[in-house]
Formats: sequence, structure tokens, C-alpha cells
Amino acid sequence: MHSLMPLPAEMKTTDEEMVIDSDFHVGLSGYVEPRLERAVTRLSERLAQITGISMHRDQSAAKEDATLLIHVDEKVAEVQSSTEDESYILAINAKGSVLSSRTLYGALRGIETFVQLVRLSDYGFVVPAVRIKDRPRFPWRGLLIDVTRHWIPPAVIKRNLEAMASVKLNVLHWHLTDDQGFRIESYRYPKLHELGSDGLFYTQDDVREIVEFASDRGIRVLPEFDMPGHTSSWFVGYPDLASAPGPYLIERNWGGHEATMDPTKEETYEFISNFLSEMVTLFPDLYVHVGGDEVSGKQWQGNPAILKFMVSEGIKDTRHLQAYFNLRLHGILNKLGREMVGWDPILHADLPEKSIIQSVRGQQWLAKAAREGFQGIAGSEYYLDLLRPAEFHYRSDPYGAEAAELTTEQQALIVGGEASMWTEFATAENIDSRIWPRAVVVAERLWSSHDITDVEDMYRRLAEVSQRLEWTGVTHKSGPRKMLHRLTDYDSIEALSTLSEILQPAFDMRWKNHDYTSMTPLNRLVDATVPESETARRFSRMVEQFIADPSAMSLHDALVTQLRTWQRNHMKLERDIQQSSLLTEVGPLSEALSQVAGIGLQSLAALTAGRAIPRAERETQATLLKQATDSIAELVIPIVPDIHKLTKAVLAGS
Amino acid sequence: MHSLMPLPAEMKTTDEEMVIDSDFHVGLSGYVEPRLERAVTRLSERLAQITGISMHRDQSAAKEDATLLIHVDEKVAEVQSSTEDESYILAINAKGSVLSSRTLYGALRGIETFVQLVRLSDYGFVVPAVRIKDRPRFPWRGLLIDVTRHWIPPAVIKRNLEAMASVKLNVLHWHLTDDQGFRIESYRYPKLHELGSDGLFYTQDDVREIVEFASDRGIRVLPEFDMPGHTSSWFVGYPDLASAPGPYLIERNWGGHEATMDPTKEETYEFISNFLSEMVTLFPDLYVHVGGDEVSGKQWQGNPAILKFMVSEGIKDTRHLQAYFNLRLHGILNKLGREMVGWDPILHADLPEKSIIQSVRGQQWLAKAAREGFQGIAGSEYYLDLLRPAEFHYRSDPYGAEAAELTTEQQALIVGGEASMWTEFATAENIDSRIWPRAVVVAERLWSSHDITDVEDMYRRLAEVSQRLEWTGVTHKSGPRKMLHRLTDYDSIEALSTLSEILQPAFDMRWKNHDYTSMTPLNRLVDATVPESETARRFSRMVEQFIADPSAMSLHDALVTQLRTWQRNHMKLERDIQQSSLLTEVGPLSEALSQVAGIGLQSLAALTAGRAIPRAERETQATLLKQATDSIAELVIPIVPDIHKLTKAVLAGS
Repeated sequence: MHSLMPLPAEMKTTDEEMVIDSDFHVGLSGYVEPRLERAVTRLSERLAQITGISMHRDQSAAKEDATLLIHVDEKVAEVQSSTEDESYILAINAKGSVLSSRTLYGALRGIETFVQLVRLSDYGFVVPAVRIKDRPRFPWRGLLIDVTRHWIPPAVIKRNLEAMASVKLNVLHWHLTDDQGFRIESYRYPKLHELGSDGLFYTQDDVREIVEFASDRGIRVLPEFDMPGHTSSWFVGYPDLASAPGPYLIERNWGGHEATMDPTKEETYEFISNFLSEMVTLFPDLYVHVGGDEVSGKQWQGNPAILKFMVSEGIKDTRHLQAYFNLRLHGILNKLGREMVGWDPILHADLPEKSIIQSVRGQQWLAKAAREGFQGIAGSEYYLDLLRPAEFHYRSDPYGAEAAELTTEQQALIVGGEASMWTEFATAENIDSRIWPRAVVVAERLWSSHDITDVEDMYRRLAEVSQRLEWTGVTHKSGPRKMLHRLTDYDSIEALSTLSEILQPAFDMRWKNHDYTSMTPLNRLVDATVPESETARRFSRMVEQFIADPSAMSLHDALVTQLRTWQRNHMKLERDIQQSSLLTEVGPLSEALSQVAGIGLQSLAALTAGRAIPRAERETQATLLKQATDSIAELVIPIVPDIHKLTKAVLAGS
Repeated sequence: MHSLMPLPAEMKTTDEEMVIDSDFHVGLSGYVEPRLERAVTRLSERLAQITGISMHRDQSAAKEDATLLIHVDEKVAEVQSSTEDESYILAINAKGSVLSSRTLYGALRGIETFVQLVRLSDYGFVVPAVRIKDRPRFPWRGLLIDVTRHWIPPAVIKRNLEAMASVKLNVLHWHLTDDQGFRIESYRYPKLHELGSDGLFYTQDDVREIVEFASDRGIRVLPEFDMPGHTSSWFVGYPDLASAPGPYLIERNWGGHEATMDPTKEETYEFISNFLSEMVTLFPDLYVHVGGDEVSGKQWQGNPAILKFMVSEGIKDTRHLQAYFNLRLHGILNKLGREMVGWDPILHADLPEKSIIQSVRGQQWLAKAAREGFQGIAGSEYYLDLLRPAEFHYRSDPYGAEAAELTTEQQALIVGGEASMWTEFATAENIDSRIWPRAVVVAERLWSSHDITDVEDMYRRLAEVSQRLEWTGVTHKSGPRKMLHRLTDYDSIEALSTLSEILQPAFDMRWKNHDYTSMTPLNRLVDATVPESETARRFSRMVEQFIADPSAMSLHDALVTQLRTWQRNHMKLERDIQQSSLLTEVGPLSEALSQVAGIGLQSLAALTAGRAIPRAERETQATLLKQATDSIAELVIPIVPDIHKLTKAVLAGS
């Protein structure tokens, strides 16, 4: 059973297999460029990682000797566009394999499919014989990484690019500036990064390296310079840009802020023009993301000169003033040979036609944009930082919700989507565990056919892809383990892992807590706990099955074993809880898990014996379960509803 | 209870503690150089990793505000020597801390001590109030990394340097050339790396970066160019250097080879001189390691011209011919301002006096060198690649064995030691797990007083230091987990971990198997299993204690739980074993563990009940235990002797 993700458009398999050993050799034909050669080197390195077999260093083979022949028809344009042909055909039989594509991009995608096909059989590493004809559903498949709320170093960006490539994502949307940080070096206006970043910014060399690293993997880099709001960090060094007098400081708090550029001064546009002229030398992509969200308008309304300008120019409200700003911005970008992308609040009748709208306030804005003739990118349904289950994102289609009512032509304006990782509550240490594996599900939604919707099969494949993703360098599995070690002061993490694995962060609680700032340490159990508990999901399925068929004894035994482990875990963890100030808060949670598991065991015993549970006891159980639904330490026990189901299945006693 | 490693020379503690939070600030006084400033940045990053609390980016504080004041008395010479003053005094009280040292090197060592002191208490992160006066016992504390048998990329070298610094090791002995690979770029003789490395070599930029990275951490880099033997890889491109006609190929097999430079031709010395002239521009250290081990002499004896030269020069045998070669080599090095280090076979009356001898054939050679007035480095007792227990290395003292009989003056010639990691059976993937944590024990032996010998306390501290070491970037814990995932084809590794954790590689078996070459995949369970099983060590202690006091019920219960886990594990693992060709070989081992655990349980039950075990059953047990001592798949079950002890403790039945 393969674990391809995203699933290809067409795939036929036979029973044959091709062996992967150290004789693996790639042959190249057709149009060969250095990026393809480097991809072949990476392929051989990745195969070496997956198999533990060193591949021959020199992968170039005579075509007739190649285990994998890669053929690319034609040259691509120097700069990757949003409409490249990424299709490929991969044919594997017992004797060899051929990957053919029109362009480099198809070959890059096909190589990743080949890598995912490798599996360990009872006689060695193999790829199954297949014939895959594949192409993406959407040409724009992105991941936004916010590097402003918390600093995300270059190495973390690179490993995420490697992981993106492995699941065929093709746009890094790099959210570089915001109230909380200006993260890119400007030679023209050095106070931007010097005063706006706490010294944590990408040098231009870093940027060039990352753009090239991405380009090698067929990934476009879309820089975002959020304007005219979200600009506090610009104003620390250049307060004259603002609509209200300074001084300004880097914002340490989350949520919207009032700092807004003054759209009425020519100096503002001169600054932006100079700044973007510098930036486009770093970012070759046709598009620049200009943000445009959450412009409060408050600074504009409080500034008499701006109000006067609005009157004299016949601009009736701040929304129109922002449209005016965007028109000017678009003019600047156009002179630089660029088009703009913005968040849906920039949608306005005056918006230049080639602009692209990214939904932030919901799918309805994507639909509205399409109806008004603008291209769109689905954003709002794929916010990874909200820590929703993979299933939620899997069920969200760019043509879903309000977009479902669009005509075919209107739908065609929706060019794809982006998973977004905002970093109010993520650091370099745990960001991978917030992005992965759930971004894979978004990747599949954007690449594969809309009718690929089997959630169970998705989770099965996701579990395997997730394990293998660590070979790309992302630390979504190993990172949290290190954090658990910290929590026990480098003692054993066995009991703490057992607890963490059955918990989930209560993200809403966290977002509602306004005490958080960028200086608040994110070193608690909630930060080391992954968004979605695979253990809980499996337990939930087992409970469902057991309730459907309580005579299934192996299921019963598995449930008992699992519940006993949870019941006893608190005892094991107690000493660590007492000794670690970071664990104090989870004591009640650990205890609650133990109690909840105990109720599960009681219910199972009663069910098996066909015995009723006395009313008083049922009431105690109900109270405990009700309490256990509350979050503690910003964490919840997701199996409480399953235990509740078990208690419901037991006969009511009097 | 602290877990400092290596233990400091003098240490006093009180009950006070100093809090570590985001207000932590370093102040610098005295002689401040850029390396110290960078060390302070790293300190703040490391503290952020350990605590999960971001430290203020700008760590320079007014002296009076500093939480940690670092004072360095004086400037050091540009190039680090083998006799630097590394002493420091670290004084911490509840209000602040002061680290003072004569030189940068003392400060670097003291910073690592400070970092190791950080612990999580029941009210936050703290360092205990201490007064530490510390200095190393030996000035030369090295780690040899062989990068020839398997290629070890720059990133792996760097993370190992970081780990070395954290335990105060100060020499990277970089084994760069050997029969199996020439791993450094030469502009003068490009065929050395082009033809001698399969394309896997360090560019000169890589080398410069690594030397600087090491220098920043107070680590000297000692390059080794092994001559005149171990030189097959040189001869692939330059066969005229050899004592027998070519062509030569890169050696793929392990063990000694015959390829030897021709010491009678002036062209050989001209080549070496040109080559070393180029290399000393990369390596500023006073010393160059010239190897000199395992010179077979066979090529020399088979070459009439060489034999003729020996007669005409009055050189009576090949040993003296090597001495002649070394004298010439020393002349070349001296012209370049360098001295030589070599393996103990270079020891010879003609050896120049400033040369340093590193033991390879045993401690007696170190003693002999000292008696003959040469400086020495203890090598042979610290071969990490032989996968001996930490305890073995801990008990090996540079002044031990034959060196114990030296006079004080002679002992003073022994300047330190080096842990060695040869890579016949290690790759970039698992080398960290072969080096760490055992190299820490060598570090302590070389830094701390000779009378620090409490093995139990060593293991206690080692366990914690080992966990924290992963923050330096080494993957000795997380790497093997990834390898286990591969073995199950990315399925759960729970059962496989349980098995792996109680096994140990049978290194002797592996070394005796001559089928291994550099192309043999190292992707089996033995490669993912760490050298020393902490689980086995703890189990062994528990058995000892239980036999001493069989009435200790909590001990009894813990033993039963552990044994039951092992007994049942085979059942859990069976499906993976059937499906994975890489696990087939461990099936019998997994089954043997289950049986051994079963015998343990029978013995415990009999002991508790005061019951005898019938003779026939005892015989069956004895047979099974005997079989279980044999290695399977190059792995052994180290607890078999413990189970044997348990059976012995049971009453004999008839």
C-alpha cells in the first residue's frame, strides 16, 4: 500500500517492483540544466537517507544503464512564473523507470513522487511498478511563514523549503515585515532593519541564498511587505512615514495596531519606491505581496492634514483612501515590472486588474473577488497556527463554501491557496511541529483532484509521510521531544510523553489571553504538544468500533491496556511535576487524565459484564467528565467525549 | 545535585541560587576580543535553548547590571598553542555571578561550566551558588574524527566541535587522508582530491570555516596527513609517489594496505613539501600529524631501487628507512614553522626531539616514548569506535598501566590524550551516536583530577549531560530513532526501540567479518543501536540489589514489569520483522530476548515463593541462556549474565 501525498491525478499499479540499491543510477536526456543536475544529486542523497545505502556519488549514467531516466523536453524561462507546466509521467517496471516532463518543474515534482514510492519490503528497498500521469489542480500552492512575531532563522526557512518541495508546494510566502519586526536588511534605509528587528533579520546574502535554494526546488518566493498598516517596525527608524507623530517602538503585543503610513505625502511614495526598487533586486518573482490587512483608519482620521487631503481629492472614506494608496503602490510596482498580491481588504473597484486577492476574512471574499474579475488565492481556511485538525483543512476546498456558487469562468480565477503559519505562538523551536504534517494536507488539497476526500486514508498516508518528512530536516517530531526533556530538567520523558501524546493545545484560550507578548517564553507543555493527537484519533476510532460491536475482545483488550497506561501515568509523573516549575500547571491535567481513564475502565468492565452502573456513581462520573472538558494549562484532553460515549453505552442503574 | 562534566578541580556550594530569566545579561571587563563577544552571543543562545526563554539580543550590559560578569586579564597569542592557560574562577551567589580568567580560553571553559549549572527548579530556572576554581589536568584533550573510511560532511564536523567545546575538549584531530579517501582540496595537486575522494572532500573554504569555527570555541585543529603508508588515495592521481608501480584505486576494504610512498626519491619530498606548504596556509596550528602507522614495508622490500638506496645509505631495515623518511619530513615541516605528531610506530632514536608520539598500539609505547624523552598523547585506550562501555575509558588513565611506573618528570611529558573515532563502521548518520556521550567521559578523564573515579556518579551525570548535548546539534539520540523508523518502513518504532535499547553491538564480530567494504550499507539494527545500553546497566544494578535483598518488593515489582515488557515484546515486533528485509536477521534475537526474560520471571517467581526449580527445567534454562550469549546479527543481549545470576540465586531442585 503506497503512501503518496499529494495523490497523483492518474495512477496504475501492477505487482512488479523495481529494486533500489547502490546500483541506482540516474540518466538525463532532453534539456538538462544545472538545477536538474542538482536535483539528481539531492535525489541520490535522499534515497541514501531513506534506505541507509550510499548511492554512487556520480549519478550521471549512460542512458541505457540508468535505473531512472529523466527526460525534460524544453527550457523554462529564467524566472519561475505562476503558470509553469508541472505535469509529468512516471513509468516504473521491474527493470527500470522513466520520468518524463515538458519542463524542469514537472521533473522536480516527479522526482518527489519517485522518492515517496520507495519502501522497504521483505526482500529489500523497492519502488512498485506504476504508471503515473500527474499534474496539479492549482498552479499556486503556497506556505506563508510569518517571521516577524518570532524570529525564524535562515536554516529553519531552508529546511521548511525542503519539506515543501517534498510535497510539491511551490510558493514560499515570506511575511517579512509587520508591527513586531522588520526582518530584512535594507542598504537604502538601514534603520528599517537596524532599529526594527532587535538585530534579528535576514541579511541580503541570506535572502539571495534562500531565493536560490527555493528556485532549485521549483519554489517561488513571494515577499510580503505589509502596508500601509502593520508598519510600526518601519516607523521606529523612519517615523516621518507615519500618519501620527512618533516616536514608535517595535510592538511586543499581538493583535492589530494603529501605526499606518501617511498616504497623502509624496515622501511616503518616494520612500516606498526606493525601498521596493532595492527589494526587487533580491526577489525575481513577478509578484510582491503588499499586505493591506487590518488598516485601522484611526491615525488617518486623527490627522487634519490627511482629512484635508481626502476632502480636496474627493476621497470619501478611509477605505477609499487605502484604495488610493494601493493605486499609487501599484504604479510603483508596475514601473519595477511587478504585480501585486494583497489580503482581501484591498479588494476595491479601483484595484488594478492583474492584482491577486488572498482571502483572510473568509471564503466569501474570494468569491466576491472572483465575481469582480480578480484572481484569488484561498488563505483563510488554511491557517495552520490556529491548530485545527488536519481533517478541517482537508475538507476546505478553494472552490468550496461561497466559491461553490461561482461560474466555471469565475472559479478559474482562483489560482490556488496557501497554508499560513503566523507566529504569535510559535518559535524557531516548535514552528516545524505547527506546520508539519498538517501542511501536507493542504498540499494535497491544492494538487490533487477535488474528489480525493477519504479522511481515513488521508490520515493513514499522512502518518507515514510525516515520519519521512524528518529526513528533509524539519524537526516536527524530534523538536517537541527536546522540549519535553527540558520540562523534566533532562530526566526521563516517558511519562511526560504519554501525557503530551494524548493532549491537544487549546488554541482559543491562548489567543484570548492578552497577557502574551513577544517576550513571553513559549516553553510550556502546550508548546511541546503537537496540534493534533494521533493517539487520541486512533483511540476515538477504537471506541466507535467497540461500541458498534462490544463483543470484539481484541478491541476490548487494546482499550483496557491503553486506559490503564493513562490511569497509571499520573503516578509516574508526579515526581517530575513536583520538581519542575514548568510542570506545576499540568498536575491537575495529568490527574484528570488518570480519572478519565478510570471512568473508561469502569465503563468497559460494566459493559463486558452486562452490569449497570449505579446512579450515584454515574453522576460522579458525569461531573468528573464535565470538569475534564475544561482546558487546563491551555491544554485539553481530546478523548473525554469518547469516554463519555463509553459511559453512555453502559446500562443505567438506579 | 549538579551534573557537571568534567568535574571542576575545586568547588564549594551553598544553598543559594541565582535565577536565570530573560533579564540575564552579560558584562565584559578586562581584555575583550571578538571571539569572547561571539562566545557571549552563543551563551545567550544556549541559555535560550536550555530554558526556552529568549534572552535579550543585546547581551552587553553595564558592568553593574550584569547577571554574569566575565573578566579576562590579558590578550592571547594569535594562534592557540598546546600550553594555554585555561583556568578560571566562577563565583555565583543569589545576586549575580562573576567569571574571571587570565585568558580567553579560561573564560570559554568557564562559560560551559556556567551553562551546565543551569537547572529547572520548582520555582524556575536557576544556577546554584558556587565557587569554582578550575583548571585542566592535561592541556591536550582531543577528539580524532576519521573522515576517510566514510565521508563526514562539514556540518557534522561543526556540530561535533560544538559538543566538544561544551565538555572542554580542545583539539580536533582531523584524520583527512588515508587509503580510503583523500578528503581535502589541494589547488597545487588537484588530482589528490579529484581522484582520491569520489568527489567527497572539504573545499578549502570548508576548511577555513571549520578552523575558524573551532578557534572561536578555543579548539585547535590538528590535521593528519598519514604518511608514508595509508596513502592509496594519494596514488590514484599521483602514482609516481608510490614505491610500487600503479595504477592505484581508492581502497574500499578495511585493514592495512601496502601502498607506501617512495622515501628514496627526491620528487617525493618535493611533492610533500609543496603540498604541506599549501596545507599550512589552512591550518595555523604548530603541529601537523603525519600518521606513520602500519607501514607494511612490503613495497619497499619489493623495490630494487629502494633496496639499493638502503644499502648505499647504510639503512639497515625498513624501520630505519621510515625514520629516514620522518627526518626528511620533519625538515620540511620545520622550514614551514611546524612540528610533528605521529603514531607510536614513528618512535625512533633519530626522531627530532620536539615531536609528539600518540599511542596506538598500547600504553607501553607512551611509557617508552616518555622514557626516551618524547612528549606523548594517550590514544590507544580511548578508541570510541571499538564501542566499549564508558566505564572502560573512564578507568583508563594517561598515567596508568605502563605509564604508572614513570618518574614524575617522565609523566610530565604526557601532555594529554585523544578519543578516537575511526569510521569503518560509522557514517554521517550514526557517527554522533558512536562519539557521544562516551567522549564526555574521556573529556572528564583528561580535565579532572585523577582521583575522580566514582563510576556510578559518572553514569548519573553522563545521562543528564548526554540529554543536553543534543542542544549542541549532535544527533546521538535523535539520529538512531530515525534509523529505527527506516527499519520498520516508517511504522511505529515502539517495539523496535524496546528491543534496541536492551541490545549492544558486538563490535568484535563485525571487525572480524572481512566482507565489509566502504560500500556496505550500514543500515541495520546494529547500526542504530547505541554502544552501551543504559537500560541494561540499570537492570544489572537492580538485579545485584535484589539478589542482595530478595525481600525488597518494590525492586521485585520493577524487575517483573521490566521482564514482562521484554517477554511480550517479540509478539509486538513479529509483524515488522516479517515485512522488513532489514529486520529478518533480528527475529531470532528478539525471540531470544523474550525467552531470556521468561527465565528471569520464572526465577523471580521461584525466589519469591522460596520454591526450587526442577533440574530438567534448570538445564533447559541453562541451555537457552548459553545460546543467548552468542551474538546474532552482530548484536548481543547484555543482560544474559544478570538473568544467569538470578537463576543461580534460586534453590536447586532435583
